[in-house]
Amino acid sequence: MSAAPLPVVRLTPKANLRAIRRGFPWIYANELVLDRRTKALAPGTVALLEDTERKPVGLVGVTPASKIAARMLDRDDQAEIGRDWLATRLRRALELRERIYDAPFYRLVHAEADGMPGVIIDRFGDTCVVQPNAAWAELLLPDLTQALADVTGVTNILKNAGSRGRSLEGLDDADAVLLGSAPDAPVPVEMNGATYMADLTGGQKTGLFYDQRPNQEFAARLARGQSVLDVFSHVGGFALAALAGGATSALAVDGSAPALALAEEGARRMGAADRFAIRQGDAFSTLDALGQENARFGVVICDPPAFAPSKPALDAGLRAYEKVARLSAPLVAEGGYLVLCSCSHAADLSSFTGACLRGIGRAGRRAQLLRTGFAGPDHPLMPQLAESGYLKALAFRL
Amino acid sequence: MSAAPLPVVRLTPKANLRAIRRGFPWIYANELVLDRRTKALAPGTVALLEDTERKPVGLVGVTPASKIAARMLDRDDQAEIGRDWLATRLRRALELRERIYDAPFYRLVHAEADGMPGVIIDRFGDTCVVQPNAAWAELLLPDLTQALADVTGVTNILKNAGSRGRSLEGLDDADAVLLGSAPDAPVPVEMNGATYMADLTGGQKTGLFYDQRPNQEFAARLARGQSVLDVFSHVGGFALAALAGGATSALAVDGSAPALALAEEGARRMGAADRFAIRQGDAFSTLDALGQENARFGVVICDPPAFAPSKPALDAGLRAYEKVARLSAPLVAEGGYLVLCSCSHAADLSSFTGACLRGIGRAGRRAQLLRTGFAGPDHPLMPQLAESGYLKALAFRL
Repeated sequence: MSAAPLPVVRLTPKANLRAIRRGFPWIYANELVLDRRTKALAPGTVALLEDTERKPVGLVGVTPASKIAARMLDRDDQAEIGRDWLATRLRRALELRERIYDAPFYRLVHAEADGMPGVIIDRFGDTCVVQPNAAWAELLLPDLTQALADVTGVTNILKNAGSRGRSLEGLDDADAVLLGSAPDAPVPVEMNGATYMADLTGGQKTGLFYDQRPNQEFAARLARGQSVLDVFSHVGGFALAALAGGATSALAVDGSAPALALAEEGARRMGAADRFAIRQGDAFSTLDALGQENARFGVVICDPPAFAPSKPALDAGLRAYEKVARLSAPLVAEGGYLVLCSCSHAADLSSFTGACLRGIGRAGRRAQLLRTGFAGPDHPLMPQLAESGYLKALAFRL
Repeated sequence: MSAAPLPVVRLTPKANLRAIRRGFPWIYANELVLDRRTKALAPGTVALLEDTERKPVGLVGVTPASKIAARMLDRDDQAEIGRDWLATRLRRALELRERIYDAPFYRLVHAEADGMPGVIIDRFGDTCVVQPNAAWAELLLPDLTQALADVTGVTNILKNAGSRGRSLEGLDDADAVLLGSAPDAPVPVEMNGATYMADLTGGQKTGLFYDQRPNQEFAARLARGQSVLDVFSHVGGFALAALAGGATSALAVDGSAPALALAEEGARRMGAADRFAIRQGDAFSTLDALGQENARFGVVICDPPAFAPSKPALDAGLRAYEKVARLSAPLVAEGGYLVLCSCSHAADLSSFTGACLRGIGRAGRRAQLLRTGFAGPDHPLMPQLAESGYLKALAFRL
């Protein structure tokens, strides 16, 4: 290597070397020798990781004060972590997305699974939004920005520093424009034939999530010629896809007025405003109220926020999912469809399915399970990180 | 009811009434009072099921000599199980398929999950193939045939009696033409843009499976501009979809010469014969040989038969899946794609995924998991029958 030698950090005897060698990408604080020299490293420093016998394990980004004290960047200890290295990883990530999607709207980099630990990059046409949620990426942000522009040709690159993960890495929460300019209005995004408005910079930071794309595509197929209820709709994720799929009407329910306003703007641009309605308010109260009104829909979709984000919240979370199922099932017409989603890390597929079936059963309905869906392929998983499989979408027929 | 009263059968105290009331569709032999009168019922007799307190539970089809002594047909004990009842269930099943698919090629009835225990009906345009794998359906076959013709408008209905399940129900294995005539040549089937040849009546009974449709669709997206290897290809399931998706070449490997001949005919009809090649032989030997030849493909798909059809076969089955992964991973180009499938009831998703990852790891490769797929929505699941979720397809990038 031409540059100065990298600092060296070392695994403790407690480290799970076998897992790390097999691909587990994180070295926890108790697995790393945190001597004075290592503690003095600037957060994000790239270092050579050695095992207890001083054999090289790979190159890591070190954040001495974090619970995840180091993240594996490259198992090749001769790699040079810089602009070219970043460009290679970005090209590989881009190849997959360009293969799968017709238009440049997708998650381009999904952190560890795309070989860039802690880094999320979403692409909205000519604009990329980068979330550098690990210190190594924050340090390399100028190189990352240039590599991203070179590889994708985007003209605007924004930094979103709003993730909780950043504070664990000792990073601030200051957003920035890294290249070009921030769009001065919400950006239209085409997905599944629908038009979504993504507010990338507005005060509300509603953004747009790509992860439900295959599940929204399937729900849209169910929705042809049907009335649709989309609860926890955000910017109209399922409702607008259903309208694009030929739904006769779609009612979007959400607590956020700005999100619903973006959904309305999307429906307008699709020429579907006359089939679209919104109802702002608490989702549970609205489900209750619709039940009181004896409302019936051909398709009901509930895509709530993470009720069980962590293990301690699991029981309460599963009860909340059961309640969503119990309140929404009566709103489904006989022979109609119910799509229930969870984005909770802690609720695995089997627990979530069980909660849904209990809720449907308590509503006095029976269900066929038509489809079990996960996040789209622009959200790949690193198999060693079971945590990554957070999103589940179950399509039932009642 | 206008007809004579139905025979009555009764649950034993051992019966899991709670599960049955919640929707579990099977009554095992030890759950049913098998007195002389019940044992004398003709296999498939429709009877009124009562609990130990003589309260009605529903209408069942009784097969006294089977391990599954009765199958729940309707929880409404006033229902009349006959042509109209069958037509209602068929219409409900058809509504789902017509909603989801543009063309009349699909599994129309998927047994318990479609409210018709033990009955499989596949549709190939104007022809339906019925597998009446439970005795109640065999008894009602004339009504089922008429209802099926009325509801779908198909002109040919064939009976396929080849399922193992029939002998457990005391049924013979004689195929028949129930309506119209049997096609005198393989039937072309359009799916995912490809043309498959389905031999519905030939001596080989290769047939065609619809269950991999969404997984073949995804593999086809990965295959654009790539060379593709399809191992255990049968009539070209993944290979022809890949050619339709723009693969530069596809090599289909299978042990069955008649299946490969149908695949070749499909490729010819698609105008893709020049991009298609076959290699007949044992899949493992062929994978070995291709490895010796240092062959490399952009996409490799392995969709083997069920290596772990039952719990006792699980360990050996998982070792076989690991071997498939270990032999196929070296054939994938760097950055290429590997799709591994299992249709084993006994291997759950997590065990199967583990076996695949062990095999990939033993081949010295690492993998991103892009997508986890199951059988298509024309193969719905009855949530109470966990056994029904047999098919898994994992798409990896190496």
